[in-house]
Amino acid sequence: MGGTVERWHELVRARDPAGLDALLADDAVFFSPVVHTPRRGKANTTKYLAAALQALGNADFRYVEQWVGPSSAVLEFATVIDGIEVEGVDIVGWNAEGRIDRFKVMIRPLKAIEIVRQKMAAALTG
Amino acid sequence: MGGTVERWHELVRARDPAGLDALLADDAVFFSPVVHTPRRGKANTTKYLAAALQALGNADFRYVEQWVGPSSAVLEFATVIDGIEVEGVDIVGWNAEGRIDRFKVMIRPLKAIEIVRQKMAAALTG
Repeated sequence: MGGTVERWHELVRARDPAGLDALLADDAVFFSPVVHTPRRGKANTTKYLAAALQALGNADFRYVEQWVGPSSAVLEFATVIDGIEVEGVDIVGWNAEGRIDRFKVMIRPLKAIEIVRQKMAAALTG
Repeated sequence: MGGTVERWHELVRARDPAGLDALLADDAVFFSPVVHTPRRGKANTTKYLAAALQALGNADFRYVEQWVGPSSAVLEFATVIDGIEVEGVDIVGWNAEGRIDRFKVMIRPLKAIEIVRQKMAAALTG
């Protein structure tokens, strides 16, 4: 269901964390680029994705390429945070209703992970 | 050209770095999960991919999912190194001849990047 990817892009363009409610499944799981343990459930996934939108979603943020399968997709992004070039992927899976039930983020290089970790921590506690 | 992905999988299954010669383009570029600066050229890319095969390619290594486009693909993998769970993606692009000209690796979580960095350094100097 390509519609899920399109709705995700709209949400990111609008920097609209409120839109997560309609897009996430109740059993959504978030896999952080930093921490091993998955964050389970819609409330946790909403919290981390909202923080990620805040931490990563500056004026430089852009999706550069994507690969879309029948029930999952990989969205490659790039941005610059405090002068550090950040590259990453969102690996997004969705259920039969088109709701996102899996969201995994990976980032390169190491310096980028460190700055994203700082910004995510600030967004989660701010 | 899906053939490139299949040939990559064969090479990984065989743990056969010698097969890189026929698979890589002369202008191949390797993007490390750790270091920002790309490694340019076939010789450099061969060196880093051979080290990655050695560092990551243990008995636990497996590809878990893939997304294949017309001239690029994302291959998601998982393994365990020294008891640490490692997840990552290979983002692979190829030219009109089906030769890989872009190979980017991202890894999560942070602990996994640290162990891969150690193993890659050992493989590159060993």
